[in-house]
Amino acid sequence: MGKDKVALGIDYGTESGRVVVVRVRDGEQIASAIVPYADGVIDERLPKGPRLEPDWALQNPRDYLLVVEKGVPKALKAARVKGENVIGIGTDFTASSPMPTKRDGTPLCYLPQYRKHPHAWVKLWKHHAAQAEANRINEIGRARNEEFIRIYGGKYSSEWFFSKLLQVLDEAPEIYEAMDRFIEAADWIVWQLTGVEKRNTCTAGYKAMWVKSRGFPTREFFRALHPRMENVVEEKLTEDYFPLGGRAGGLAPAWARKTSLPEGTPVSIGNVDAHVAVPACGVTEAGSLVMIMGTSICHMLLGTNRQMVEGMCGTVEDGIVPGLWGYEAGQSAVGDIFAWFFEHGVPEYIWKGARPSAGGRDVTAELEKHAAALRPGESGLVALDWWNGNRSVLVDVDLTGVILGMTLATRAEEIYRALIEATAFGTRTIVEAFESKGIPVKNLVACGGLPEKNRLLMQIFADVTGREIRLAKNLQTCSALGAAMHGAVAAGRAAGGYDTIFEATEKMAHTQKLVYKPRQGHREIYDRLFKEYQTLHDYFGRGANDVMKRLKELKKSCQSSVVSRQ
Amino acid sequence: MGKDKVALGIDYGTESGRVVVVRVRDGEQIASAIVPYADGVIDERLPKGPRLEPDWALQNPRDYLLVVEKGVPKALKAARVKGENVIGIGTDFTASSPMPTKRDGTPLCYLPQYRKHPHAWVKLWKHHAAQAEANRINEIGRARNEEFIRIYGGKYSSEWFFSKLLQVLDEAPEIYEAMDRFIEAADWIVWQLTGVEKRNTCTAGYKAMWVKSRGFPTREFFRALHPRMENVVEEKLTEDYFPLGGRAGGLAPAWARKTSLPEGTPVSIGNVDAHVAVPACGVTEAGSLVMIMGTSICHMLLGTNRQMVEGMCGTVEDGIVPGLWGYEAGQSAVGDIFAWFFEHGVPEYIWKGARPSAGGRDVTAELEKHAAALRPGESGLVALDWWNGNRSVLVDVDLTGVILGMTLATRAEEIYRALIEATAFGTRTIVEAFESKGIPVKNLVACGGLPEKNRLLMQIFADVTGREIRLAKNLQTCSALGAAMHGAVAAGRAAGGYDTIFEATEKMAHTQKLVYKPRQGHREIYDRLFKEYQTLHDYFGRGANDVMKRLKELKKSCQSSVVSRQ
Repeated sequence: MGKDKVALGIDYGTESGRVVVVRVRDGEQIASAIVPYADGVIDERLPKGPRLEPDWALQNPRDYLLVVEKGVPKALKAARVKGENVIGIGTDFTASSPMPTKRDGTPLCYLPQYRKHPHAWVKLWKHHAAQAEANRINEIGRARNEEFIRIYGGKYSSEWFFSKLLQVLDEAPEIYEAMDRFIEAADWIVWQLTGVEKRNTCTAGYKAMWVKSRGFPTREFFRALHPRMENVVEEKLTEDYFPLGGRAGGLAPAWARKTSLPEGTPVSIGNVDAHVAVPACGVTEAGSLVMIMGTSICHMLLGTNRQMVEGMCGTVEDGIVPGLWGYEAGQSAVGDIFAWFFEHGVPEYIWKGARPSAGGRDVTAELEKHAAALRPGESGLVALDWWNGNRSVLVDVDLTGVILGMTLATRAEEIYRALIEATAFGTRTIVEAFESKGIPVKNLVACGGLPEKNRLLMQIFADVTGREIRLAKNLQTCSALGAAMHGAVAAGRAAGGYDTIFEATEKMAHTQKLVYKPRQGHREIYDRLFKEYQTLHDYFGRGANDVMKRLKELKKSCQSSVVSRQ
Repeated sequence: MGKDKVALGIDYGTESGRVVVVRVRDGEQIASAIVPYADGVIDERLPKGPRLEPDWALQNPRDYLLVVEKGVPKALKAARVKGENVIGIGTDFTASSPMPTKRDGTPLCYLPQYRKHPHAWVKLWKHHAAQAEANRINEIGRARNEEFIRIYGGKYSSEWFFSKLLQVLDEAPEIYEAMDRFIEAADWIVWQLTGVEKRNTCTAGYKAMWVKSRGFPTREFFRALHPRMENVVEEKLTEDYFPLGGRAGGLAPAWARKTSLPEGTPVSIGNVDAHVAVPACGVTEAGSLVMIMGTSICHMLLGTNRQMVEGMCGTVEDGIVPGLWGYEAGQSAVGDIFAWFFEHGVPEYIWKGARPSAGGRDVTAELEKHAAALRPGESGLVALDWWNGNRSVLVDVDLTGVILGMTLATRAEEIYRALIEATAFGTRTIVEAFESKGIPVKNLVACGGLPEKNRLLMQIFADVTGREIRLAKNLQTCSALGAAMHGAVAAGRAAGGYDTIFEATEKMAHTQKLVYKPRQGHREIYDRLFKEYQTLHDYFGRGANDVMKRLKELKKSCQSSVVSRQ
C-alpha cells in the first residue's frame, strides 16, 4: 500500500477482538485480523477455579492484551503496511465491563491470592448477577430524587458500573478493600497501551452516573448506598474524565516492541462499541438515528440540547461527539427473535422448500421469500417484540412476547413477518419518544450484521417508521472503523490525521448507495397497525395487566420447586 | 348372533353416513358400515352445474338415501343378523341442514327445472353464506325483544334454519315460492323411510326458534323479517313437533324391500348427532356435562329448570331427553387448533425426534411426550383458544387466537401445551357459566375422536376444570349408538325394546373404566392461570380492546383490494 498513512482500530467485542487497518485519507479498510479470546465468556467456572453462580459473566483481561499482541502484527502484515505508516491507534470496548485493579493497573485476578475469586475478574457487560444491587441503587436514587434516575430514563441497570461495584462490596468486601481502582476495560486497555490512566467521558456518562458539569452523585448518595462507599470516587475511581477523540498518550515502549509500531504512536481515549459506530456511519449531526442492528438494536441519536426522554439507556453531553448530546436507546432482542423463530417455529413446509446451504437449508431465504409476498395487514397478526423484555422505552426485563390474531389459516411466513413488523414498531416507539420531546429523527442509518442478511426487514423498518434508511458501507466493522477514526484524530492533522472527529468523518466514513425508502401505501396501513401495537404495548407494559410478570413469577416458582425436589 | 334382538342406528355425518347394528339387551355394537356420500360436501360447484359462491356448502339428499340402501344390508351382513331380528331404527343428523321440497317430500333439486339452482339443494350445517340474513334476524329479534335471542345465548347463528330460509327468499324468491316445505334433513329422512312427515322438537328447538309451550315466534316477527314470511309456519313448515324417542312410523314397503327389513319396523323421530350422543354416553340426568370432542367441542348438559346462560347454542325443554332442559354450548375449534399447530408450528427438532408412522412421522406423540413432561405454569405461557372465533360464551366469530409469554427459551412443546391448556380454559369458562346460573356440573363425560388420541389433553381438562372425566365406551360411534337406542325405544318393551330412553340408557350405554381425575397441585396452579385467561378473555372478548375485529377488517380490505387489482 506504499506510503499511505493508516490508523489502527481495535474493536473489543464479546467473544473476540478485531484489529483493522484503515487508510486515513479515505477510510478504506485495508485489512483486518480477528483474535478470539482464549477464555471467552466465563459463565460456568473460572479457569482452573470454582464454579460460578447463575447469571455471572466474566472475562480474563489478559485476552484483551493478546488481541493487540497477536492482532496488530497480523493485520499489518495482511495489509502490507509497515509500522511506521501507522499514525494513530483507537480502541472501542463493550461496556460496562469493569474490573478491580491495583494502583499500577494490575488486575486483581492476576494476583495469586485473588485468582480463584470470581469478584477479582472483569465483569462483562452481560453479567446479570447484580440485580439486587441495581434495585437498591434505583430505590435510593428515586427516594433522593437523584439526577441519574432521569438521565437513564428512569432506571439504572444491573449491567452497569455501580451495580457491579456494589455487588463486589456486598459479596466480597475483601476484594473491595484490596482494589485501588475499579475501572472500565475500555479505560484499562488504554492505560496498558500508554502507561497513563485517563478515563473516558463516554462510559462515565452512560454507565457510571457521571455528568459533565457536575461529576458524580454526592458522597451522601454513596453513603446511603453503603457506608464504605462514601468516598468511592476518590478511593476507587478518578476525578478527571477525558472527552472522546482526544489523545490519551503515546504507545508505551514495551508495546511498541511487541507490535513493531513506533514508540509514542498516539493512542486515543477509550471508547464504546455502539457509540464509536455513530461517526463511522457518517453521522456527526443531529437528526440521523444510527441503529446498530444485530441480536439486539442500539439506537444512537445526537441532539442539540438535553431532554429527558423516556426509557433511554443514557443521555450524555459530548457522549458520542463533542458539542452535542448523545442519546442511547435500545431494543433488547431483534435478531435474537428471528433466530428463535428459525429454531422453534419453522414447520416442515418451509424447511422442505428451502434450498440446501452450508450446514443445512437456507430457511431464512425461504421464509423471507414468502413473507415478502405478503401485503401489510394481510396476515391479520400483530405481535409484541418482548422475547427478551423491553429496553426502550419501558425498561422492563420481565415483559414477554405476544402474538395475536391467529386463525386456522395462519401460516409460518405470516408469523415471521409479524415478528419483523413488531421489531419495527419497537423502533418506531423509540423514534416517537424522541420526537415527542422535540428531538428530531429525520432519517435512519443502519449498521451491524442484520441489515445485510435481510432486505425485507430493512424495507419494513422504512415503511413502519416512514423514514429513509441508509446503510453504512462496512456494515459489520463499523465500530472498528470508528475506533480507527478516533486514532486518526488522536494523531491530529500535523501528523497526517485529522484535528476533529468531524473532519475524520467527512473523509473516512461512507454509506452505501442503496437507500430503503418508505412506500406510501404500506406506511398508511402500518400507521393503523402501529396504533394496535401501541395499545397492546401500553396495556401490557404500563401496569394495566401485569400478566407477564405474574407468569414469570409462576414460572420461577415452578422451577425452584423442581430444584428443591431434587 | 342367533336370535338376539338388535336395533339399527343410522348416523348422518358431514362426509358419510354410518349404520350400526346394536344388540338391544346390552348395547354391544355388533357391526357397522360406512357409506361415503357420492357428492360429499358440495362447496365448489353443483354436480354438472354452476360454480358456487364462497362460503356455500350444499349436499345431495339422494346420498342420504344411499346410506340406507347400501349401508343397512352391508351392516346386517357383517353382523350376521337377519332383518327379522331388527326391532327398530333410529337416525341422527347434522343440523341445521334444511332443504326445500314439494308437498310429497320430493326435494326441489330432484326436479329438472331446479336442478341447476343452488338454492334447491340441501344447505349443509356449515353453509356460511347467510350471514347477512342472520344479522337481520338478530337485529330485528333484539329490537322486538324476541325470546329466541335469550334462548340462543344472545345470538341466532347464520348456520341455522331461518337464516338459511331467509337467504333463499332474499336471493331466489322463485325457489321460495316453489317449495311447499322447508325441512331439516333429520326430518326428511324419517319422512322418506316411513312416508310420514313428523318433525322433531330437537332441531325445531335448537335451530328454529320453536319453544315447547309456545311454538314459533309471532307472525309479526316473521313479517318484520320479510313480508312474504308472515305465514311461513303454515306455508313452509308444520305446526306439530314430536318429542325425541317417539315412534314416527313404520318402515315403508319400498324401503322394506330395499333393505330386507320387515315392513313396518318402527322408526324413531329424527334426532341430532350431538344431542343423541348424550344418552349414549350414559347421561340422562342433570349434573354430567357431555363433551363431543373433535375438531370442535359440543358441550351438552341437562338441567332441571330453565336458565338463561350466556353464550348457549340453545336451551330446549325435552331437547335431549324428556322432562329435562337440554343445554348446548360449544367451542368452535379444539382439535382444529392442534391440527393447525401440527402443520404450521412444529419445528425440525420435534419432527426429527418423532418416530416414523404411516404417512410420515408421529409428531403428535413426540410433542405429547415433551409437553407431558412439563409442569403447569412452567412454560410461562398463556393462550386464548380463538383460532376459529369463540362460540360459548362470547358468540363471536371475529375473535382470533393469542399466545402470550414467549421468551428466547420458549420451546415448541411449551406452545403446544399452552394451546391444550387454552382449550381446557375455554371449557372451564363454559362450566362456570352454567354454575353461575345454578346449573350444576358435577363431572364430565367425553366422546368423539379426540379423547382416544390424546391422554395429556384429557388429564389437563380434568386438572383445569377440577372435575373427573369418564369416557364413553365407543368413543367414535356414540351418535350412532344413541340413534340405535332411540330405535329400541321406538319399538317399545313389548317388541323387545325399551319404553323410555332412560331404560335404554341403563342397559345399552356404557363408559370405560378409565377415569381422569384432577390432581390437586396442578389444579391450584391452573386456578391462577385460568384467572389470567379470564382477564385476557374479557379484555379482548368484551369490547375493551377490539383489536381482533379491526385486524380482521384490515385483512379483509387487503384481500379485497388484491382481488380488485386482478
